[in-house]
Amino acid sequence: MNMIPTNEIDLVKASSSKINDVDFNNLQFGRIFTDHMLVCNYKDGKWQKPQIMPYQPMTLEPSARVLHYGQAIFEGMKAYKDDDGKIFMFRPDQNFARLNKSATRLAMPEFPKNYFINGLETLITLENEWIKPGKGNSLYLRPFIVATEPAIAASPAEEYSFMIICSPAKAYYTDPVRVLFAEKYSRSADGGVGYAKAAGNYAAQFYPTRLAQEKGFQQIIWTDASSHDYLEEAGTMNIFFRIGNKLITAPNNDRILDGVTRKSIIQIAEDLGIDCEVRRVSVSEIKAAAKDGSLKEVFGAGTAAVVSPISAFSHAEEVFEISGSEDSYASIFKDHLLNIQHNISEDKHGWRHKVC
Amino acid sequence: MNMIPTNEIDLVKASSSKINDVDFNNLQFGRIFTDHMLVCNYKDGKWQKPQIMPYQPMTLEPSARVLHYGQAIFEGMKAYKDDDGKIFMFRPDQNFARLNKSATRLAMPEFPKNYFINGLETLITLENEWIKPGKGNSLYLRPFIVATEPAIAASPAEEYSFMIICSPAKAYYTDPVRVLFAEKYSRSADGGVGYAKAAGNYAAQFYPTRLAQEKGFQQIIWTDASSHDYLEEAGTMNIFFRIGNKLITAPNNDRILDGVTRKSIIQIAEDLGIDCEVRRVSVSEIKAAAKDGSLKEVFGAGTAAVVSPISAFSHAEEVFEISGSEDSYASIFKDHLLNIQHNISEDKHGWRHKVC
Ligand SMILES: Cc1ncc(COP(=O)(O)O)c(C=O)c1O
Ligand SMILES: Cc1ncc(COP(=O)(O)O)c(C=O)c1O
Repeated sequence: MNMIPTNEIDLVKASSSKINDVDFNNLQFGRIFTDHMLVCNYKDGKWQKPQIMPYQPMTLEPSARVLHYGQAIFEGMKAYKDDDGKIFMFRPDQNFARLNKSATRLAMPEFPKNYFINGLETLITLENEWIKPGKGNSLYLRPFIVATEPAIAASPAEEYSFMIICSPAKAYYTDPVRVLFAEKYSRSADGGVGYAKAAGNYAAQFYPTRLAQEKGFQQIIWTDASSHDYLEEAGTMNIFFRIGNKLITAPNNDRILDGVTRKSIIQIAEDLGIDCEVRRVSVSEIKAAAKDGSLKEVFGAGTAAVVSPISAFSHAEEVFEISGSEDSYASIFKDHLLNIQHNISEDKHGWRHKVC
Repeated sequence: MNMIPTNEIDLVKASSSKINDVDFNNLQFGRIFTDHMLVCNYKDGKWQKPQIMPYQPMTLEPSARVLHYGQAIFEGMKAYKDDDGKIFMFRPDQNFARLNKSATRLAMPEFPKNYFINGLETLITLENEWIKPGKGNSLYLRPFIVATEPAIAASPAEEYSFMIICSPAKAYYTDPVRVLFAEKYSRSADGGVGYAKAAGNYAAQFYPTRLAQEKGFQQIIWTDASSHDYLEEAGTMNIFFRIGNKLITAPNNDRILDGVTRKSIIQIAEDLGIDCEVRRVSVSEIKAAAKDGSLKEVFGAGTAAVVSPISAFSHAEEVFEISGSEDSYASIFKDHLLNIQHNISEDKHGWRHKVC
């Protein structure tokens, strides 16, 4: 990794704030951005000094490689405020590590850790007012790297921009969602880039997801591309199944994004004495469990939605309703996570990262 | 398809030309652009009036969806000049059809045909001086569409830009290349977006290609992602094998880009009475043919390189040199194509499209 000796960041403050124009009770996800952003450019073989500046449009050559060859990766994180006004991130070291795993797979230069952590901390501190206390409120943080070099040969760029933009958020996907198990389309191949948070992975899902929506299902649960027999993950969430009192989730492989929420839930399950198996989950097993009534819950896990209950799934034109359970694991994990994130409960694994 | 009644294009000419600064004998692919570009924006559910304007940087919000979710597709075409100064495109209807196939798969709006063809014609006519006669010289044309809408929710954009930029070119990959047959990494999945000219497909290849280059191989021939037993295509070229006097190329499927050069070569082979089989090509068959001396040629086919001979391949740590042949099919097809493109020979299938 490309460690940088200094942690200095150039700062140009916005002359005024847009915050008074924002209706915090009616936030649509990802459309409103705070007053500042962080930019750090890569050229001449190294990352230059990061700059925090007023949020503004960027200038890109029409030949910038990101527009043609999709060299673009991102992360999704949140900052949370407790009732005393203290601000925290959740396991930012995990997002940092994943960013560089994505960078390597997309032939992009690794980003230095001190720039990542200090950059986030400085930016979040500056945007303090944008973070509202209360469970479910947060500041969504979007670090990303794009290839800016103006050259349309199909090869890795020599110039990049790392940026962080911030958007105030409430939890989204609050209603239970109905999902389709993928039978024809796939999200990623063995030996592909599915485990990277690569921009291209998302656009590839839009069309099949739109077809699913036309049938009344909001999301797709992706299956392995070779056989479509094993359930993997959703578009922006990892997936858990509860059969009886046992939790099951697919193992990581090169098609699946190694979610921070997923790995935290696996740990919380262990802490709470809930049996959790990490193993391949077959479509036929889940259908059988739905039929015999032992499938109690299915839920997604991801930073944006935290935990998102799934109320029905469809496969081979058959629809299965999932009743849910009184002692819902989904709510237990969601509460548990939010309590750690908002500094309400004990943080025995050191997941909270205090910002200010 | 979204047909637009008018074919008008707004035109703002550059005040001066950069052409005198360009060394046409030393062109590096895709780094120099002509004086103008075409821009057509999609908003409020329709494509707006196209504009030709001086080539210039574009302004993009940091939250533009293309930067986060990879909604970006492109085409690669060329304009050719004959010795009388007449200018032609080659089968632009094919690129148009493929652009919209890509658009559909990436959940982007289809682009109207008259804007595509008239836009190209108007722009090429304006850049007449940039196109040099002589086989191998051309103006590379890069139509592309990117999602510009400023919103970082993972769903299809409502705003896009279609653009065309142009770069003067000589044929590239002139030396025979050495290739690696993919054994671990893959380019695309069944049910994925491999058949679309989607930006993300390219970035996904850079890292494995870099590893191949470190071993002394310039390109990878991708195999099917499930078994790695069947040869599919290269990074920016379809692939042909010649065993004895028979040509073989893989059939199109949802992992393979339906190349215009490939389909033209299949037709030329038929015209010339060369036996060409379109069927699955196994790695073991090609290795066996290399061993018994019947593998005469392997070559790539694509707009940028036209026809690109391959001199060696490696699989399972074994390297096979391909001797080549006196009556090289690669040269026959290359000449045949260039002669049609440059208006030297008869165009019996109506592939030339006269611009001016
Ligand atoms: C494809 C995919 N799977 C799973 C997740 C969940 O990961 P995390 O819990 O780190 O947010 C995400 C990201 O949000 C994702 O994009
Ligand atoms: C992946 C891929 N395969 C094949 C080709 C060849 O297609 P065409 O002959 O239309 O240029 C290209 C494009 O250049 C490509 O990007």
